[in-house]
Amino acid sequence: MYPECLKKVIECLKDLPGIGEKTAERLAFSLVNFSKERLTVFSNSIIDLRDKISNCSICGNITDNDICSICSDSNRNGKIIFVVEKAKDISLFEKINVYNGKYHVLGGLISPLEGIGPEDININSLLDRIKKNDIEEIILALKPSIEGETTMQYIKKILENSNVKITKIATGIPIGTDIEYIDAMTLEFALEGRKDI
Amino acid sequence: MYPECLKKVIECLKDLPGIGEKTAERLAFSLVNFSKERLTVFSNSIIDLRDKISNCSICGNITDNDICSICSDSNRNGKIIFVVEKAKDISLFEKINVYNGKYHVLGGLISPLEGIGPEDININSLLDRIKKNDIEEIILALKPSIEGETTMQYIKKILENSNVKITKIATGIPIGTDIEYIDAMTLEFALEGRKDI
Repeated sequence: MYPECLKKVIECLKDLPGIGEKTAERLAFSLVNFSKERLTVFSNSIIDLRDKISNCSICGNITDNDICSICSDSNRNGKIIFVVEKAKDISLFEKINVYNGKYHVLGGLISPLEGIGPEDININSLLDRIKKNDIEEIILALKPSIEGETTMQYIKKILENSNVKITKIATGIPIGTDIEYIDAMTLEFALEGRKDI
Repeated sequence: MYPECLKKVIECLKDLPGIGEKTAERLAFSLVNFSKERLTVFSNSIIDLRDKISNCSICGNITDNDICSICSDSNRNGKIIFVVEKAKDISLFEKINVYNGKYHVLGGLISPLEGIGPEDININSLLDRIKKNDIEEIILALKPSIEGETTMQYIKKILENSNVKITKIATGIPIGTDIEYIDAMTLEFALEGRKDI
């Protein structure tokens, strides 16, 4: 029923996460009303992404250079590594502007169920960096889940004979959330992690 | 903080309706993980849309030809015109597969408040079609709002001396909706439009 070229745009939009058939149709129809110039800009931006984006050869962050802007910033503390699962996580922490060290993107979490082992994620490159740069602390910011915990325990075990300090970000109740909506395991972690006030 | 080409993709995605900053970032990051081939397909689909889509010279539906597939379909009843506001509305009615006539896209509704008059929407071309094709019935499927009603009343008035039958689709309570959530005006229309059972 739709013209072929509209169908194709709908198909492409449906590939995006959280975009279903109806939303894809709505977005595609809105693109029909875009000016030719805006459509050119949109298309070019995707081509640029295709041709210029790669992963930082040091930390795995996305970059349009060989080395990302954070790794090449000599004003940042090179003795701390903040370990995240995905490159996008870096931007979340960068936005709050409280951390001034380096990052490392694992690109996944250890998951025996899904057959993802330590060798399938960027743990070896993390260990290399720790050794070569005399890292003093690594901060683990992985999601509190079985996979996240397994990955953190694995990293802790591998580094147990080194001098590097290993911390993980706190699990607890998010600000503004009613406690009645929080699951039992989070409550347990929150209680365990209680602090003097 | 983001590489320039990622920023551009985010900006473009934010132009889409209902896509805010956070969603645009999420979608852009998912594009980073697309294969180069899929990004090429995506980009090309937008270029195709830009170059091939236009409005049907008869009814205003979107098409990749001069005349849309519905207007050029001789198996459809050419004596009835179904009048909608937007081209997308056509696909909604086509999907339910109960109508076999032609369509006409107004491309907007009369709105004195926003300075949109009858000459700003495709009413003249509708009147031309009615005259030239001996149309027997027009079905108005415009949204039940002040603008929709104004537009319907205007079309009715202009055609009052012609033989064409003018109907509008029913206003009432959507199936599956609890009556307690329905506004007063819809209830009034629903009562007015009651039917024998």
